[in-house]
Amino acid sequence: MPEPAAPPGAPGDSPFLRACRGEPHDRVPVWFMRQAGRALPEYRAVRERHSFEQVVHTPELAAEVTLQPVRRYRPDAAILFSDIVTPVQAMGLGVTIQPGVGPVVDRPLRTREDVDRLRQLEPDVDMPFVLKTVSLLVAELDVPLIGFAGAPFTLASYLVEGRPSKSYTRTKALMLSDELTWHRLLDRLASITIASLRAQVARGAAAVQLFDSWAGALSPDDYERAVLPHSRRVFEALADLEVPRIHFGVATGELLGLMAQAGADIVGVDWRVPLDVARQRVPEGVGPQGNLEPAVCLAPQPTVEARVADVLARAGGRPDHIFNLGHGVLPETDPGVLEHVVEVVHETGRVLPPAAVADADPDQVPAEGAARG
Amino acid sequence: MPEPAAPPGAPGDSPFLRACRGEPHDRVPVWFMRQAGRALPEYRAVRERHSFEQVVHTPELAAEVTLQPVRRYRPDAAILFSDIVTPVQAMGLGVTIQPGVGPVVDRPLRTREDVDRLRQLEPDVDMPFVLKTVSLLVAELDVPLIGFAGAPFTLASYLVEGRPSKSYTRTKALMLSDELTWHRLLDRLASITIASLRAQVARGAAAVQLFDSWAGALSPDDYERAVLPHSRRVFEALADLEVPRIHFGVATGELLGLMAQAGADIVGVDWRVPLDVARQRVPEGVGPQGNLEPAVCLAPQPTVEARVADVLARAGGRPDHIFNLGHGVLPETDPGVLEHVVEVVHETGRVLPPAAVADADPDQVPAEGAARG
Repeated sequence: MPEPAAPPGAPGDSPFLRACRGEPHDRVPVWFMRQAGRALPEYRAVRERHSFEQVVHTPELAAEVTLQPVRRYRPDAAILFSDIVTPVQAMGLGVTIQPGVGPVVDRPLRTREDVDRLRQLEPDVDMPFVLKTVSLLVAELDVPLIGFAGAPFTLASYLVEGRPSKSYTRTKALMLSDELTWHRLLDRLASITIASLRAQVARGAAAVQLFDSWAGALSPDDYERAVLPHSRRVFEALADLEVPRIHFGVATGELLGLMAQAGADIVGVDWRVPLDVARQRVPEGVGPQGNLEPAVCLAPQPTVEARVADVLARAGGRPDHIFNLGHGVLPETDPGVLEHVVEVVHETGRVLPPAAVADADPDQVPAEGAARG
Repeated sequence: MPEPAAPPGAPGDSPFLRACRGEPHDRVPVWFMRQAGRALPEYRAVRERHSFEQVVHTPELAAEVTLQPVRRYRPDAAILFSDIVTPVQAMGLGVTIQPGVGPVVDRPLRTREDVDRLRQLEPDVDMPFVLKTVSLLVAELDVPLIGFAGAPFTLASYLVEGRPSKSYTRTKALMLSDELTWHRLLDRLASITIASLRAQVARGAAAVQLFDSWAGALSPDDYERAVLPHSRRVFEALADLEVPRIHFGVATGELLGLMAQAGADIVGVDWRVPLDVARQRVPEGVGPQGNLEPAVCLAPQPTVEARVADVLARAGGRPDHIFNLGHGVLPETDPGVLEHVVEVVHETGRVLPPAAVADADPDQVPAEGAARG
């Protein structure tokens, strides 16, 4: 007698989680980085009354803006509305998010003494609002919730620079000049990230995405020596939870193999590397997430459709592809375009059975329509 | 009877020009992008009395700041001190360079009508100060002068956005939405760049570097379709001048092969791609320029020396390598470090004879010292 079927849409059965595990499923899953946020009029309506930090710190509001894109786009996953610096901000490190600037740190961390100020995160005490948000969402959602955290390097870049940077000069200077302090800093940030993600999973997050957003500023050698061991520690410390682990950074084409080595099940790919090329840079068993150029969503519909078809074709119908943008939704995006992208991915994306994947010619398979816009 | 030897240091005989042509020479040539500028106290002294634009627009000052790093570092080439937007600014397009911001355009170009406002550059009329600067420098220098211009895409990114951008949203939206206007814009910008570079060479610039600084924001497909034809036209229009042509952009690892196809003799490589990997992405006959991570110059001396050795080792002793940073000198750099880098490159870099290059094991050759910092 078969076991009772899981209710439709329940997380364990979802195309998103099946794709994360490389298991057969019946449609290409799709979600968008920054699907919640400024592209949505209903988000802007919330922000007219509340600051970004108020939204993040108020579970009902954070849950509401997380749900907004799920209602509108019907994607295959939701992602916790939060910020990379939320845990360290919640620990009292003097981080504020300045409109039009980004995270600003009162006293940037640059010395051994500064690093010694960093204690361990106690999620229940320091950021109960995040955990409450997760609980509210898990009760509400019929798609999996992705937990969210910044990777040690990207967190360090904010805390060392003191504000968003283009060149990461101070961060790199510390990394290259004082290895002991550097590794101590990244080790503590890894512990904070582990605590945050474990707590999110304990409340029901069904997968996690570790954002090493700015790791692409590093050479492969520097990444491997100074960053990879700490990101690996984060992923290893989540292994027993048995939730899929996604790893993403912008402009990390040269680092994809190393980022997979850190222990990710899925590696996010920005639009600079064609998905079939990206596939060759990661080991068998690690799937790609991505990688529609976000600016394509500002183009006319035939171009959007052709580019979606190109991403699907380059994904080759393999069951471990998760459709996404190559980076976050641009604020200028018309939500109707994203809604259409979800429809097109669901209608035209084909997931081949494992036996067929091995034989498939990626130029022939699996999306309908022209491959170029 | 042999022809009379060229005087020592004369351009035709210089290691830099020989390297550009892939000819044998006796030392690895080195110069630094942004070698003139804020890292030098003598430059800051000039800027205390004059704005950036005054310096660029006054031949004696522009020549002086171009010469400052040549006197101090003894590099193998000088590069004209100028800005990517100088020609379009000189044409009266309402471009100002705002301190701490960068180029700002009064009326950004976004429509067909805007593009039709772009006339052809007349270098002798529009920017006689640039040509005078070149003439002053050529009379003074004992190393080759590299002429300088922005590539069509990077120029377009400034003119369409109206100010420096991180996402190039409006530029990409135009590129993806209105191909006719886009190509008309890039065609006109290519003509401006050609006129500027031809005029610089006519006054004695011995090589040119075309900066497509922001092309790395594009996917290979978009670059190939929307940008490459225009950069190719620039390089083709310079072919009869028989000066070496260098092409560089930041974060262009995925585009190196296409940028070489545009017609460059040398392709600049930023620090994200190891030089031996970069070599595999460009055709035989195109040499690499680069690629020390600029932030390494903020590290202790042993690290600097180890990283210089690593770049030299990965260059494999081939005669077509030009040592440089992977991007511009960071303002925080101690000039003494750059002076030392030039010495180390000249003392430890080895240029193998062509026959030896074919047999060489890149792991064994040619720099002294450890390959990793």
